[in-house]
Amino acid sequence: MKDTLHNRTRLVGSATRRDFLTAGLATGGVVVAASRSAAAAGDPAITEIQDWNRYPGDGVAERPYGHPSPYEKHVIRRNVTWLTADTRSSVSFTPLHALDGIITPNGLCFERHHAGIAEIDPGMHRLMINGLVDTELVFTVADLKRFPRVNRVHFLECAANSGMEWRGAQLNGCQYTHGMVHCVMYTGVSLRHVLEEAGLKTSAKWVLAEGADAAAMTRSIPLEKMLDDCMVAYAMNGEALRPEQGYPLRLVVPGWEGNMWVKWLRRLEVGDQPWMQREETSKYTDLLANGKARRFTFEMDVKSVITSPSPQAPLLHGRGQTVISGIAWSGKGTIKRVDVTLDGGRNWTTARIDGPSMSKALHRFYLDFDWSGSPLLIQSRAIDETGFVQPTKDELRAARGENSIYHNNGIQTWQVKADGMVDNVEIS
Amino acid sequence: MKDTLHNRTRLVGSATRRDFLTAGLATGGVVVAASRSAAAAGDPAITEIQDWNRYPGDGVAERPYGHPSPYEKHVIRRNVTWLTADTRSSVSFTPLHALDGIITPNGLCFERHHAGIAEIDPGMHRLMINGLVDTELVFTVADLKRFPRVNRVHFLECAANSGMEWRGAQLNGCQYTHGMVHCVMYTGVSLRHVLEEAGLKTSAKWVLAEGADAAAMTRSIPLEKMLDDCMVAYAMNGEALRPEQGYPLRLVVPGWEGNMWVKWLRRLEVGDQPWMQREETSKYTDLLANGKARRFTFEMDVKSVITSPSPQAPLLHGRGQTVISGIAWSGKGTIKRVDVTLDGGRNWTTARIDGPSMSKALHRFYLDFDWSGSPLLIQSRAIDETGFVQPTKDELRAARGENSIYHNNGIQTWQVKADGMVDNVEIS
Repeated sequence: MKDTLHNRTRLVGSATRRDFLTAGLATGGVVVAASRSAAAAGDPAITEIQDWNRYPGDGVAERPYGHPSPYEKHVIRRNVTWLTADTRSSVSFTPLHALDGIITPNGLCFERHHAGIAEIDPGMHRLMINGLVDTELVFTVADLKRFPRVNRVHFLECAANSGMEWRGAQLNGCQYTHGMVHCVMYTGVSLRHVLEEAGLKTSAKWVLAEGADAAAMTRSIPLEKMLDDCMVAYAMNGEALRPEQGYPLRLVVPGWEGNMWVKWLRRLEVGDQPWMQREETSKYTDLLANGKARRFTFEMDVKSVITSPSPQAPLLHGRGQTVISGIAWSGKGTIKRVDVTLDGGRNWTTARIDGPSMSKALHRFYLDFDWSGSPLLIQSRAIDETGFVQPTKDELRAARGENSIYHNNGIQTWQVKADGMVDNVEIS
Repeated sequence: MKDTLHNRTRLVGSATRRDFLTAGLATGGVVVAASRSAAAAGDPAITEIQDWNRYPGDGVAERPYGHPSPYEKHVIRRNVTWLTADTRSSVSFTPLHALDGIITPNGLCFERHHAGIAEIDPGMHRLMINGLVDTELVFTVADLKRFPRVNRVHFLECAANSGMEWRGAQLNGCQYTHGMVHCVMYTGVSLRHVLEEAGLKTSAKWVLAEGADAAAMTRSIPLEKMLDDCMVAYAMNGEALRPEQGYPLRLVVPGWEGNMWVKWLRRLEVGDQPWMQREETSKYTDLLANGKARRFTFEMDVKSVITSPSPQAPLLHGRGQTVISGIAWSGKGTIKRVDVTLDGGRNWTTARIDGPSMSKALHRFYLDFDWSGSPLLIQSRAIDETGFVQPTKDELRAARGENSIYHNNGIQTWQVKADGMVDNVEIS
C-alpha cells in the first residue's frame, strides 16, 4: 500500500463547496455501460481458455481449514507503526474498505492488545467469581457451556476509534479512520445466570472484569449492565474465539466501549463501587477544554462511515451507475435511518439499509446513483432508533474541546476527484 | 480422530426403547455442580502462574490474517476417503459438532467439487448472459458491483447430505451424517437486475447456469426462481468468496439444493426448456422403488439435527445440568418450532430457538435439562413456517423406496450411553 496515510487537506468555506455539484440520483433501471464492451473487443478473458477451465484444481483433502484466494492477499489487518512504542501494546485495523455486509470474518477483526496476544491452553483456564457473592465459584470452560446459551450479533468498537481524527483529517483510508470496529455473532452464556449461581449480596453494585493476559486488563462495569445483556462468550461466527479476540472466554458488553469487553476473562469480582483502575482513570476518560475529564463514558454513540468509495477503494469505473456502500451503528440499539450527501452536506438523500437490522449491530447501507464524473464530497449521517443524530466533527469539538482521544463519532468526509481517487478531507 | 465412522447399531422395537428413561427437565435455576470443585482442590490452573499471565504475547503486526488457536486444530473440514475415487470430485464436511450459533466460518464451510478447486484470477473472469435475451452481455466482476447490492443469510445444503444414511446408521458423527450444510451471509446483486439489463424475451422460461471450473458444472433453473430471490454473490461473511466456494462469483439459489448454486459462475443462458445436463438426469435425481426417478427436486425439505451431544461431541461432564444444541432449516422459509426427545420419541419437549430467525437460514435450538446419567435416545424434529414436519427415516423410505441418495431429511437418532459416549443408531 502507498504511504499516503497523512492527508491534511482541508477545504474551507462555501466557495469551495460550490464546485461540487450534486450528481443525479438514479430513479429507475440500472445501466452498466461497461458491460457490453468486453464482448466486442476480443477480450482474452473470453477468447482464451484459462488453466482453471482446462485442468482440475486441488482436491478436498488439501485445505482442512480454508483461506482466502491469493488474489485477496491485500485484504488484511494493518497497523500503524508510529502510533505506539510497541506492537504488543497496539492496534491493528479491520480492512473495512474491502468488506461488505455486516459480518466481519474472524481473521480480519481488528485487534487491540495491552500485552500482546495471550495464547491460552483452555484446559488450564478458569473463570473465578468472587467478592460480594454468597458463594465464591471457579468455573472451567466446560462448566460454563452447561449454562443456557445465547447467540447475538454485536458490533465491538474501540473507544479510540477515529481518535486520530479529532484534530482534522489525518489518515487516508477508512481502515485507519474507522477500522477499530467489527461485528460478529457471539455464542455464550448470559452473565446473569453465572452471577445468580454465585448469589449476589444486596450491596452489590459493580463488577470488576479481569483478563488473564500479562497486562491483567481490568475494568469496572455497573452490575445493572452485567445483569441486563452481558455475556461470557466462547464462540464468534460459529467457531471458538480467536486468540486475539480472547480465546477461550471474553466478556461481551453490547453497545459499550471495546476496552470493557475483557478478553481472556479469568475473574469477575463483585463490589459496591468502581475500582478506579488505570484503564478507567488515566486512560479511557475524556479530557475536556476546562481541564476536567468525563469518565465512565461507556456507551458508543451513533456513528457511520462510507466504506466504498473511500481512499483505499477509489471509484475506478468512471461515470454512470455507482454504488456507495457504508456501515452504521449505535450503542443504543438499531439504526433507523442513514442519509448520504454527495455535495458536502448541501443535499441529503436517505440511503437504503439492507440486510438484518439487529440491536447494537452494524447496519449496511447503500446509495445507488448515476455519477456524472464530477468531483464529489461524500458523507453519511446515521440516526438511531432513539432519535440520536450523528454530529459533525465541529459540533463535537464545540462540546468537548480539542483534547479528546475517545468517542469521536463525527461525520466523515471523503473527497472523490474526477479521476475517481479519494481523499480524507474536512469541510467547515 | 478415531476411525469409528461405521456404526450400524440398530435398536429395534419398543422393548429396547423402554430402557431409555426420560430425564427430568430443569424447570428452574441452573446448578452446575462441578463449578465449586476446582477451587477446593488446589487446582494448578489457579495456584500456578501460567506463561500467558507472565509474558507479553505476539504483537499486532504478526497475524495480518488471523487463524484459530492451536488448541482448536481438530476443528477442521474432513473427507471420507472411501466415498469417491478422487478427492478432486469429492466432498469435505463441515465440523458441525464443534460449532455453535448459525454462522459458519468461511474456512470451515463444506466443499463439494466436481473437478477440484478452480483458482481463478478475478481480472480474467467474466459473466456472460446469452440466449433468449434482447442483448447478450458480458460483465466483469467490477461491472457487477455497480448493480444494487443485497445481503442475505442462507443455508446451503448439498442434495446428498445424509445420503449415506438412507440404508441405516452408517457414519458415526454429525460432521459426516449432516455436514454438507453451511450458513453464511452473502453479499451480491439480485439476478433480476442482471437479467433485466439484458432484457428477457417473452419465450424465456429457464436459465442454464455454468461454472468456469474444469467440470463446467451446469444446471437448469426455472426463470421464475431466478427472478424471485436468486443472487450473484461475490462475498460471504463480509469478505470475498473463498476459492472453494466459487471465487470470484457464485450463484445463490436460496432454499434449493447446493448443486444448483453454481460456483465460479461464468455464463447464464436463457432458454425455453431445461437442458437435461448430466447433473439433472444421471445425477441429482431420485430413483424410486418402481424404477421411475423424481427429477428437478430442487427444494430442500425441513430438517434438523442435534450437533451436541453427538458421536464427536460426547457428554463428558456427567449427570446434572446439560445443554442439547442443534440446527434446523427449511427451503420453504423460517423454522417455527423444534421438538426434542430424550427417550427415542416417546415424549417430546419444545426446544428454545435462539438467535436470528431468517428465511432459508439455519436456526439454532437448545434444550436445557438435568441429566440423570441414564442412557438417552435423543432426536430433534423441526417444523417450518408452512407447517411441514420433519419425517422419520422409515416414513421417507415408505414414500421413496430404498434406492435414494438425495433429499434425506429424516429424523436422526443419537444414543447417549451412561458414560457419555454417543453413537449413531436407528430405532423403529
